[in-house]
Amino acid sequence: MSHNTFGHLFRVTTFGESHGPALGGVVDGCPPNLRFRLTDIQRELDRRRPGQSRFTTQRQEPDQVKVLSGVMADGEDLITTGTPIGLLIENTDQRSKDYSEIEKLYRPGHADITYQTKYGIRDHRGGGRSSARETAMRVAAGALARLVVPGFSVRAALVQMGSIKVDRSRWNWNEVDNNPFFCPDPEAAKEMEGYLDGIRKSGSSIGAVIEVVAEGVPAGLGAPVYGKLDADIAAAFMSINAVKGVEIGEGMGAATLTGEENADEIRMGNDGKPLFLSNHAGGILGGISTGQEVVARFAVKPTSSILTQRRSIDRDGNEVDVRTKGRHDPCVGIRAVPIGEAMMACVVADHYLRHRGQVG
Amino acid sequence: MSHNTFGHLFRVTTFGESHGPALGGVVDGCPPNLRFRLTDIQRELDRRRPGQSRFTTQRQEPDQVKVLSGVMADGEDLITTGTPIGLLIENTDQRSKDYSEIEKLYRPGHADITYQTKYGIRDHRGGGRSSARETAMRVAAGALARLVVPGFSVRAALVQMGSIKVDRSRWNWNEVDNNPFFCPDPEAAKEMEGYLDGIRKSGSSIGAVIEVVAEGVPAGLGAPVYGKLDADIAAAFMSINAVKGVEIGEGMGAATLTGEENADEIRMGNDGKPLFLSNHAGGILGGISTGQEVVARFAVKPTSSILTQRRSIDRDGNEVDVRTKGRHDPCVGIRAVPIGEAMMACVVADHYLRHRGQVG
Amino acid sequence: MSHNTFGHLFRVTTFGESHGPALGGVVDGCPPNLRFRLTDIQRELDRRRPGQSRFTTQRQEPDQVKVLSGVMADGEDLITTGTPIGLLIENTDQRSKDYSEIEKLYRPGHADITYQTKYGIRDHRGGGRSSARETAMRVAAGALARLVVPGFSVRAALVQMGSIKVDRSRWNWNEVDNNPFFCPDPEAAKEMEGYLDGIRKSGSSIGAVIEVVAEGVPAGLGAPVYGKLDADIAAAFMSINAVKGVEIGEGMGAATLTGEENADEIRMGNDGKPLFLSNHAGGILGGISTGQEVVARFAVKPTSSILTQRRSIDRDGNEVDVRTKGRHDPCVGIRAVPIGEAMMACVVADHYLRHRGQVG
Amino acid sequence: MSHNTFGHLFRVTTFGESHGPALGGVVDGCPPNLRFRLTDIQRELDRRRPGQSRFTTQRQEPDQVKVLSGVMADGEDLITTGTPIGLLIENTDQRSKDYSEIEKLYRPGHADITYQTKYGIRDHRGGGRSSARETAMRVAAGALARLVVPGFSVRAALVQMGSIKVDRSRWNWNEVDNNPFFCPDPEAAKEMEGYLDGIRKSGSSIGAVIEVVAEGVPAGLGAPVYGKLDADIAAAFMSINAVKGVEIGEGMGAATLTGEENADEIRMGNDGKPLFLSNHAGGILGGISTGQEVVARFAVKPTSSILTQRRSIDRDGNEVDVRTKGRHDPCVGIRAVPIGEAMMACVVADHYLRHRGQVG
Repeated sequence: MSHNTFGHLFRVTTFGESHGPALGGVVDGCPPNLRFRLTDIQRELDRRRPGQSRFTTQRQEPDQVKVLSGVMADGEDLITTGTPIGLLIENTDQRSKDYSEIEKLYRPGHADITYQTKYGIRDHRGGGRSSARETAMRVAAGALARLVVPGFSVRAALVQMGSIKVDRSRWNWNEVDNNPFFCPDPEAAKEMEGYLDGIRKSGSSIGAVIEVVAEGVPAGLGAPVYGKLDADIAAAFMSINAVKGVEIGEGMGAATLTGEENADEIRMGNDGKPLFLSNHAGGILGGISTGQEVVARFAVKPTSSILTQRRSIDRDGNEVDVRTKGRHDPCVGIRAVPIGEAMMACVVADHYLRHRGQVG
Repeated sequence: MSHNTFGHLFRVTTFGESHGPALGGVVDGCPPNLRFRLTDIQRELDRRRPGQSRFTTQRQEPDQVKVLSGVMADGEDLITTGTPIGLLIENTDQRSKDYSEIEKLYRPGHADITYQTKYGIRDHRGGGRSSARETAMRVAAGALARLVVPGFSVRAALVQMGSIKVDRSRWNWNEVDNNPFFCPDPEAAKEMEGYLDGIRKSGSSIGAVIEVVAEGVPAGLGAPVYGKLDADIAAAFMSINAVKGVEIGEGMGAATLTGEENADEIRMGNDGKPLFLSNHAGGILGGISTGQEVVARFAVKPTSSILTQRRSIDRDGNEVDVRTKGRHDPCVGIRAVPIGEAMMACVVADHYLRHRGQVG
Repeated sequence: MSHNTFGHLFRVTTFGESHGPALGGVVDGCPPNLRFRLTDIQRELDRRRPGQSRFTTQRQEPDQVKVLSGVMADGEDLITTGTPIGLLIENTDQRSKDYSEIEKLYRPGHADITYQTKYGIRDHRGGGRSSARETAMRVAAGALARLVVPGFSVRAALVQMGSIKVDRSRWNWNEVDNNPFFCPDPEAAKEMEGYLDGIRKSGSSIGAVIEVVAEGVPAGLGAPVYGKLDADIAAAFMSINAVKGVEIGEGMGAATLTGEENADEIRMGNDGKPLFLSNHAGGILGGISTGQEVVARFAVKPTSSILTQRRSIDRDGNEVDVRTKGRHDPCVGIRAVPIGEAMMACVVADHYLRHRGQVG
Repeated sequence: MSHNTFGHLFRVTTFGESHGPALGGVVDGCPPNLRFRLTDIQRELDRRRPGQSRFTTQRQEPDQVKVLSGVMADGEDLITTGTPIGLLIENTDQRSKDYSEIEKLYRPGHADITYQTKYGIRDHRGGGRSSARETAMRVAAGALARLVVPGFSVRAALVQMGSIKVDRSRWNWNEVDNNPFFCPDPEAAKEMEGYLDGIRKSGSSIGAVIEVVAEGVPAGLGAPVYGKLDADIAAAFMSINAVKGVEIGEGMGAATLTGEENADEIRMGNDGKPLFLSNHAGGILGGISTGQEVVARFAVKPTSSILTQRRSIDRDGNEVDVRTKGRHDPCVGIRAVPIGEAMMACVVADHYLRHRGQVG
C-alpha cells in the first residue's frame, strides 16, 4: 500500500475529492478475458450509496460508474483485455456552499487539521480527499476483484453497534439485506433500529464492528514475511475511513486464550483434503491461507460530525467551538460493510495472482 | 509490504531460516551521516534474545550482529553512508535433530501446513522461515530506524497476559525493565509471574497484548489514502509472528463510543501549537500523524507449541497426534515487545522520509 | 516502472485505448502548493497533437485535458493539494470503422500479434492500448513534473531523420519551433522537408533520433545501484512507442573512446562550484547527476504502418498480405519530441523528491 | 528498479562495498523446487572474476559464494523453498591502503564526486558502492534466474572494442570461450589482443559493445506500457557500471531504416507457430516478447582509471591533477559480458513470473 495505489499484481489506484468534478480509479493488472456487466459494478455501488435509509447521509449521489478502458464489449457483456481499467463516477450533488463555513475550521476527529498541517493546503469541501466518498471507487474495484479467483465469494455484516452485539446463534446471512444495517441477526437489528434513531435524533453518532468472511480462498495465498495475507488485510481495512482496529480470527481476544484453546486441530476430510475442526486462526497461518474461510473484523469509530458543540481551533490558531451541521451518517460503520467486502476481494485477488506468479 | 521487503524509502529486507547458517537483513535508503555504535543495535537484540528468564525459550543464541556494508568507521562509531546496510547474525545453536521428528508433521497452529501447501517444500527445522527468529533482523533494523527522525523515541509494554491486564493508574515506564514481562505495572507483573509459572509447568501457553507508544512523531506523517500511517502500522504489526489483532488509539473499543466521547478536542498550547485534550485517535487522523503520541496495540496468540496432545495430520495425509517437546516460550507475547518497538520505528522512519520527499 | 505506473514518489499511472471513450492519467505524490494553469498542460499537449502539419497523422483530436482532482482553484490558477491529480482527455475522432478490417490481422512491426498472444484478446481499434495515443497522458503528466524542481527546464529536438543528421555547429534552440520537425538546424530541417515529402507520398516511413537536454538538474539526483538516474531515463525512453535505442552522453559511441578522450576534467568555477570542462558523461556519473546538463537520446523506428504490401498472418493462422491504409505519421519520431521532454521531466521530478526524502 | 532492489516478483537486492567485509544479495520471490548446485553459481562468478588474463584487473578475489537461506540440501543439490535466498561473498583482497591517497580526490569519470555530493560522505576505498565489484552479486542472482523459465538460455559476446567490430559472418558462439574477450569472431579477437596490449601498456583504456542474446523467451512476456520487457532490459543494462547506451534489435540504427526495411514479416512455421522472417525488432513488439530471440546490446565506456594525468578537484575544492595507479581493467567491457547475461536472465525471469501471475 503506497500513496493512492494498493496491490502488487492486481493494483488499484484512486483519485478524486468529495466535492470535485469526479471520482476515478484505475484497476491495473486485472487478468484478461473476465466477463462482466456494468450492472455487476453498479449493484455493489448501490449497496454503498448514501441516502437509502434514514440511517445514512441524505446526500443524493446516483454514483453512476463508467468504464473508460480495458474492456471490449460483447453485447451487454464487457470482457477485460488485460490493460488498465479506468473507472469514473461524476459527482453531481456537490452543494459546496454547505461547507464554506468550515473552510478554516478544524472539526475534531476529522482529518482537517492533519491534511492542512501536512500539505499546507486542503480541499475542505466535504472533507476533500479524506471523505469516505473515495471508497466508492474501492467498491467498484472490488466488484472486478470478485471475478478473479474462481469460486471466490465474500460477504460482510455489521456485528456490533455501540454495545449491541449480534447473537451468533441467530446469525443468518439472508437477514443482512432485510434491515438497513447489514445485520445478520434480526433481533439485534431491531434493537439497533431503536437505538440508532435516538442517536440520529440527538445529532450524535456511534461506532460499529464489521465482520468480513471470504469463502473459496484457495490454500496457499500470502507472501510471508512482509506480504502476509493477514498483514495486507489489516492494512486494507485500516485504510478505510474511521477504522481503528482490525482482527483476524480470534483477534484481540487471542490474548486470553491458552494454546490448547487456540489450536485448530486437523483431520482428513472425506474429500481427501485437510479438515480443520475449528477456525480460531481465521483461515490464516503464518500469513498464508489455510483453505478455510478467511474471517476478519474491523472497528469503525463514531462519525466525528456531531451536533454537539466541541472545542477546537481554526487554521489561524483561534480557539473556536464547532458544531457540525449538514448531512451525515449517525453510524458510518453501516456503509463500511460493502467497503470491507471490496477490500477483502481486492487483497485476495492480488495474492491469488502473486501466488500464481511465483508458484505456478 | 511485499514479499520479504517493507518500507518505501526506508526499506528493510530480511532473509534466513531459524536453523540455517545465518539470518540477514538489508536496510536500504537509510539517510547518510547517522552516527551509531554496534552496541546500539546489540542492546536492542539483547532485549529480544531468548533465554534471559525462565519465561522465554532456553535456546541460547548470542545473536551477535555484524554490519557488512553501508557505514564508515570513525573510531568505535559507525557512520551511515546512504548505501544499503547489510546485517548478519550467524546461527550457532541449531540443534536440528530436535526437529527431525516433525519433518512430516503439521503442528496445529503453526505454519507447517501452509508453507508446505503453498510451496510444496519447506524447511521444517524450528519452523524455518516462519520462525519468530526472523524478527531478530527487524529489531536490528529498528535500532537504525530509531536514528532517522530527530527527537523520536518509542517504547512498548506488555499490557495484558491472558486475562491479567495492567492497571493504567499504576503505569510506570521505569518498571518495564524490572520484570521479565516488560510490564509497566509492578502489581500486574507479580500476578503474571505466578500465572505464567503455572502455564509453563503444565506445558501450556497463553496470549498477550502489547502496547507501543511513539513520541516525537512529527505532525504530518502518513500518505493517504493507501499509505496511511495507521494502515502501515497495522500491516507491520500484523506481520509479526502470532499477531491476530491490531489497534490504533481506542481500537476495537471505538465501536462502543459516541461521537461526543470519541472527539479529541483541541485548544492552543502555550507553545503556540495545537494542543489535543485527549487522544482517542491514537495520534492519527485521516491516516496522518497529529503530533501527539502515536499509540497502537497488538494481540499475540498463545504459542502453538504445547505439551498437550492435539489432533493433526502429516504431509502424507495420515491422521496423527502431536505433542510439541523442545524449547519454547510459554508466552511469545513477551518477546514481541521489542519487536513492536522496532516495527513502529521502521514505519515512522519510512514515513518521515516519504513526507520529506513529497512536501520538503 | 511497473505495469501502467512509473515513478516512486512522483508516480504516473495511465489508462485508455486509442479508440475508447477516453484517455486518463493519475499523477500521485505531486508536491502541494504548485501553481499552474490548465493552459500550461494544454500547451504541451498541443505540441504533441497530430494533424498540425502534413507530416503528422491527419487524425483530428482536440486533446482537451480536464483536471478532475488534486487541485484547488484560485482564479484561473490551479494549486496542487498533494492529493492525486486525475487527468482526462475524451476521445472524439474515433472512426473505428477504419480499423474493422484489421481486427484479425497482425500488422508487421505492430504489437497486434504480441498483445493477442499475451492476453488472448485485444482492442484492435487503432492499436488499442499499444497506440502512441497513450503518450498524450505522459505529456500532460510531464507538464506537471516540470513544476517540481525549482530552476528545472527541459528541451528536446529531432537530431536525425533517416541519414540526415543535424550539424551541431548550426544548433539553434530557437529554430526548433520554426519547422514541423522540432529540428534545431534550419539547413537540416529544409533537407528533411524534401526527404519526408518523398517518404510520405510513397506511403513509406522513416526512423529518427531525438535528443533531450535537461537543465537545472541539481547535482546528487539518482538512487544507485538499481535506481540510477540514467537507468530510469533509459526505461522511460524505451517505454515510448517505437523506441529501440537509448543513449546517455556519448551513448553507443562511448565504445570507441579511450579513457583520455572520455574523461570529463573538472576545475573550480567562479561560483565556487565544480566546473566540468566537457560532458561526455551526459551529466551523470555512477547513476547520480553531476549538476551539468543531462543529455540523452533515443532512436525511434519507422512507423510500421506503410502502404507497401508486407507478408503476415492473421489470428487464425492464415497467411495474408498487409497494406496499412488510413491516417499515419511518416515519421513518428517527430511527435516523440515532446514525449521525450515529458518523460525526462517526470524522471527528474521523481528523483528530486526521492533524494529530498533520503538526504533532506 | 528502485534503490538497491530490482524486479517485481523475482526480486534482487544487493549490498556491499568494494573493500568492505563482504558483498551480499537477496533473491526474493524465486519459485520453489528449483534444483541447482553451488557450482552452478560459482561457475558464472568465475567467468566474471578478475585476474584471469592480463587484460583484467590483477585484483585476486576468489569470490566464493555462500548460500545462507532459502534452500534445502538434497545431497550436493540445493532445492529452492520459495523463501528469500541469501547470498554472501566475503572480500579477501582488500588492500585498502592502495586507496588512501584518493580519499579526498575526485577521479574524473568516476562517481567519487557524485557520491560525495549526494550523500556528504562516501566509502572511497576502491570506489565503495560504485565499484563494479557489486556486479558479482548480479551474476550470482542471474545464475538462479536462469533456472526459472523452462527452456531459457542466454549468451553474450563482446562485439566491439574501440573501433574493432566483429564480422557477423564469422560469428561463432563456440569461440567466445577461446579468447580473453568473450569475442565470437576469432579474427577480431586476434586484432583486439594486439590493440588492447597497446592500450594496457600505455596505461590507457578503451570502450566496448556487448551483445546479449536470449533464447527460449516465451512469447507474451512484458507488462506494457510502463513495464515493457525492453524498458526493463534497458534499465537493467544501464544500471551496469560504465554503460552509456542500450539497444534492442536494430537499436540506434533503426533511425536510418524505412518502414519497408524494418518490418519483420511473418509466415506460419512448420510447427504451426508464427515464423518471423527477420528480427529487426530484437524479439520485442509493443514491449512484449514475440517468441523470437531477444537481442540487446549495451555500450561500456572506457575505464576511467588511467595513468595519464587529468585535471580535477578534491573534496575541499582544491584543483589537483589525478593519475590513477593500482590494478585496473584496460577494457571493463570485457567483464561486463557475464553481467549482461545475468541481468537479462533476471529481467526475463521476473517477467515470466509476472506474466504467469496475471494471465495464468
